[in-house]
This record gives sequence, structure tokens and C-alpha cells, in this order.
Amino acid sequence: MQFLSIFHEINGDLKVVEKELEKYVLTQEPELTLAAGHLLKAGGKRIRPAFALLAGKFYRYDFEKILPLAVALEIIHMASLVHDDVVDASMTRRGHPTVKAKWGNRVSLHAGDYLSAVALKLISQYQDKRVLKVLSRVTVEMCRGEIQQISASFDAEQNLRDYLYRIKRKTALLISASCELGAVVTEAPEKIVRALTRYGYHVGMAFQITDDILDMISDEKVLGKPIGGDLRQGIITLPVIYALKHSQEKEHLRELVTKQVKSEEEVQEIIRLIKDSGAIKYSFDMANIYLNKAKKELNRLPDVKTKKTFKKLTSFIGERSF
Amino acid sequence: MQFLSIFHEINGDLKVVEKELEKYVLTQEPELTLAAGHLLKAGGKRIRPAFALLAGKFYRYDFEKILPLAVALEIIHMASLVHDDVVDASMTRRGHPTVKAKWGNRVSLHAGDYLSAVALKLISQYQDKRVLKVLSRVTVEMCRGEIQQISASFDAEQNLRDYLYRIKRKTALLISASCELGAVVTEAPEKIVRALTRYGYHVGMAFQITDDILDMISDEKVLGKPIGGDLRQGIITLPVIYALKHSQEKEHLRELVTKQVKSEEEVQEIIRLIKDSGAIKYSFDMANIYLNKAKKELNRLPDVKTKKTFKKLTSFIGERSF
Repeated sequence: MQFLSIFHEINGDLKVVEKELEKYVLTQEPELTLAAGHLLKAGGKRIRPAFALLAGKFYRYDFEKILPLAVALEIIHMASLVHDDVVDASMTRRGHPTVKAKWGNRVSLHAGDYLSAVALKLISQYQDKRVLKVLSRVTVEMCRGEIQQISASFDAEQNLRDYLYRIKRKTALLISASCELGAVVTEAPEKIVRALTRYGYHVGMAFQITDDILDMISDEKVLGKPIGGDLRQGIITLPVIYALKHSQEKEHLRELVTKQVKSEEEVQEIIRLIKDSGAIKYSFDMANIYLNKAKKELNRLPDVKTKKTFKKLTSFIGERSF
Repeated sequence: MQFLSIFHEINGDLKVVEKELEKYVLTQEPELTLAAGHLLKAGGKRIRPAFALLAGKFYRYDFEKILPLAVALEIIHMASLVHDDVVDASMTRRGHPTVKAKWGNRVSLHAGDYLSAVALKLISQYQDKRVLKVLSRVTVEMCRGEIQQISASFDAEQNLRDYLYRIKRKTALLISASCELGAVVTEAPEKIVRALTRYGYHVGMAFQITDDILDMISDEKVLGKPIGGDLRQGIITLPVIYALKHSQEKEHLRELVTKQVKSEEEVQEIIRLIKDSGAIKYSFDMANIYLNKAKKELNRLPDVKTKKTFKKLTSFIGERSF
């Protein structure tokens, strides 16, 4: 996998992170393992731990010091995914609730809470108060982002600002915190911490924008999930916002986008209209604006080997297909 | 209200706690206020902040120091109540899901997460690492308790040990932490901290046991909610466990208790069988064992006025009717 090859300087450490994750996620409680274990098996890019480890390379790298943080970051991310799994009666997919075992929803609910609490326990090991300060602030904002996403769903009136508000909270802040805190726990000087914080923020914004593009143009087999998931859930992403303004068939598009239940054909029709509007190029351009900002921050950092890794990673995000 | 009169020495400070709670729970986000605001309006006894404030009186009381903790404790409690509100499709009441506004469930989910994050932010102010250590441990255990409650629901095979495991996690640990940390943040000596921790634990156990008794014998008007709520939800409490062993009509009782959907008559029948078995007296006796242990811990504490308050509070819990 391309991602992994970029990370080669930390691959050994990432394996230890994976082992630790297993330890915390696969518990004695079978219900918990049931609710969160599939996430572990599904793998994932572990980009948050990776960013924390890489950020730690800009000063005095100390894996032992970064490990609990790296694990906590991925667990915070997992907790939010587990809560995304909690299905609402009014939020079924195409009218069919995801098949779940009895009590499935409530277990997901508490499993997410459990993971958050475990992350907190890991964080409580750090003397440096910045770790908790940053992560508590980020988790508050993550919830704000989720809530805005709910209230803005199926709403065709939202604009670029609403979108940026949301992806900042949904994604960018935690990636930014991963970079920031990877540096903090290695006691890096403030200048390095700040540059990494901003780097992570810009990369995170670009990462979510490309994620939202891929939801429309990727290959289902490569992406590992059906295309158009956001559209079905009513999440209005950047390409949609652009297309709603610039499509030749604005009105028709608006009608389709705001439909609470969409047929497969309608989803495909929306994607076609979006592609025709030039929204994909526009969105990639937007991602690249953030990536360029990220690259600029790298210039402020000391010339260590990891800088090249970060540069490669930044380029990769602009071109990724999964 | 009797509770409030016991608290007279901290009533002024509790009012400030209430104001702060409003500040954090009623946010700019209307969705959040919607999901958590009713809890605020419903009032509640605010026993966790009260315990923290009272515990602070055993050394150098400093309201400013305890305030963020007291607010965070109640918010942690509220977050768990908000998550209890998340209705599962398979966990409707008598077959009817609680009527909720569109997205209601998902908003409750994220509102609970938001409150937890806000509590975390409040806690991040403290220099003393014990605050985060204790609360992160308690929140992990609270989740374990919730999960055990789900997997043990409608299970007539559970025993006293399962019950004590659960109420310790559901209730006693957070009350214990309230007492412990009220002392910790006022920099009380270890001896005081330890006695208060144990006091809170025993009082918390007794508090939950009486809660579970009241769910069967209280007056709906006094309790403010329908009697037998636990039975309907399949939560097997101490009186049930006792009656399942000692009732003259064990088999009949077991059949009724394990029914996933119960008629009003069946709930009343269960309560009658429980009362006839002597389970209520047994349960009150059990509560009193814990209350006596709590009182013993008070003997280890310095002779300040608050000791009398704690004694009164302890007696009150044994006799309370709401």
C-alpha cells in the first residue's frame, strides 16, 4: 500500500501502536469487542498515530513518550466512528436499518463512550497539561461539527463557509492536534510545535476535501465502500455546494440532492451533474490550496529526514485514490 | 425540599454551580440545548456537586477551586443521562418508540459526547493530575457498568455480585470521586482524601440501592416517574434478585420478570410478589449496611460542622422517598 511505504521510517513503531490498540479495543467484555472490534479488523490508515510519530521526529524522538498519545488519538477517532454506527430509526439506509444484533445500538453507544474514556485514561499519563487542553478542546469542536452536520443535512442552502466549518471540526482539528502533540510530548520548542500544528490543520482540511471528492469519483472496489454515501446520508460536501451554484441544471440538482430517499439512479444522476459542472476540478483545486499552505509550513521546520516524508505525504494526499 | 435543607451550608455555592451549568449546557447550538436543556430544567438533586463542595469543607474550603470540578461532575452525570435517552429501535417502551423530533436520536448521541467533552475541558484546568486520573478511571468503569446492564437485562440468572458490580459502576464510583476530588482540589491531606473516598463509595452504593427500592414502592407523584421503570426495561435490581430466590411463587415471578414486554397488570403483579417475598426489607437492610460503613468513615474525619451535615445526609438516604 502506498501509504505504508511513505511511512517506512515509522512502520516498526506503527506496528507497536497496532498491538496496543488491540489491547485496548479487544477487552474482556465481549459486547465491547463486538462493537469496536470490526473497526480494528478493518484496519484503516492510522494516519493520526502516524502524524504524531512523524511530528515527534523534528526534535528528540522518543517512541515511549509518544506511544500512549498515538494510541489515544486513534482511539478517539475510532470512538467517533463507533458512534457514527449508532443507527437512528429515522436515519436508516434507503429505508432499511443496518442489520444489528439485539441491543446493538445501545452497545455501540456505550462502546464509543468506553473508547473515549480509555483514550482519556491514556492521556492522563502526561504531565504536560497541553495534551489534555488540546484534546479536550478538539473533542468539543468535533461534537460541534457532528451536530452541525446533522442540522445541515439535506440543506441545499449551505455555503462554502458552512462546509469549511464542518470539515475543520470533523477532521482537520484532530490531525492538527496529532502533529501538535507529537511535538509537544517530545518537548519540542514552541516554534516547531506551532509550525506542525498549522501543517496538520492544512493537511487535514485537504484530506477531508479529497475524501469528499473520492466519495463521488472513486472506484467502489478501491474505496472499499459504495460511492455516493454522503449523498444518501444528505451530507452536502464541497463538490455539491459548487455544483448547486454552477450546474447548468441547478434546479433539477437541488431537487435530487434534497430528496431524503434517493434511488440508485438518482444518486448516479447527481454524480453526473456534479462532474459536468466542473465541481471536481474546483474541489481538487481547493484541496491543493490547503496542501500548498501545508508545504509552506514545512519550510519553517528543521531539515530532518522526516521533512521529506511529510512532503511526500502532502503530495500523496492530493493524488490519492482511496 | 428536604435535600436542600440538609445542604444549607452550601446552598449559596450550589446556586453558582447551577448558573455555571446553564452556561455550559445552554449553548449557541440550538440542537444541543434541545437535547440537554430539559435535563437542566428538570432540576435534579445535584448531589455530585454537593458532595464535592461538602468534601471541600474538611480542609481549606475554597469555592473557586472546587467550582469547575463540581460543574464537571454534574455534566458527566448529565452526559450519561442524555445517552440513556438515545432510544434503540429494539428498545422501545412497550413497543412504542418515544416520540422524538427528526434526528432526535443522533442529536442526543452527540449532545452526550459534547457534554463529556465540555466536562473534560473544565477538568483540564487542574494542575493536580489526580483529578483526571480519577475521573478517567471512573468514566471507563461507568461504561463497563452500562454495558453489563445491557447484557444482563431480562436475565434472571444474575446474582448479588452482578448487581453490586453494576451499581458500583453506575453510581457509587462517581459519588465517591466527587467526595475524593472535592478534598483533592482543596489540597487536603491524604488521610482525609481516603476517608472521604470510602465514605462516598458507601453512600453511593446505598443511594443506588434505595433508588432501586423506590422504583417499586414509591408514589408515582412523589417519584416524578412511573413505578416499575426498571422492570419494564429488564433491569434486574436487588429486590428482584432476592425475590427470585425467596418468593413463594419463584417460577411464576421468573416468567414475568423475563418477559420482554410486560402489561401494566404484570408489572403490578411482579411488584406484589416482590413485596410479599420480604425483598424490600432485605434491600433496605443492605442499604443500611452501606450507610453504617459510610458513617464509620466519618469518624476518621476532622470534627468540622460539615461532619454533621454528612451524618444527616447519610440518615436521609436511608429514609428518602424520592
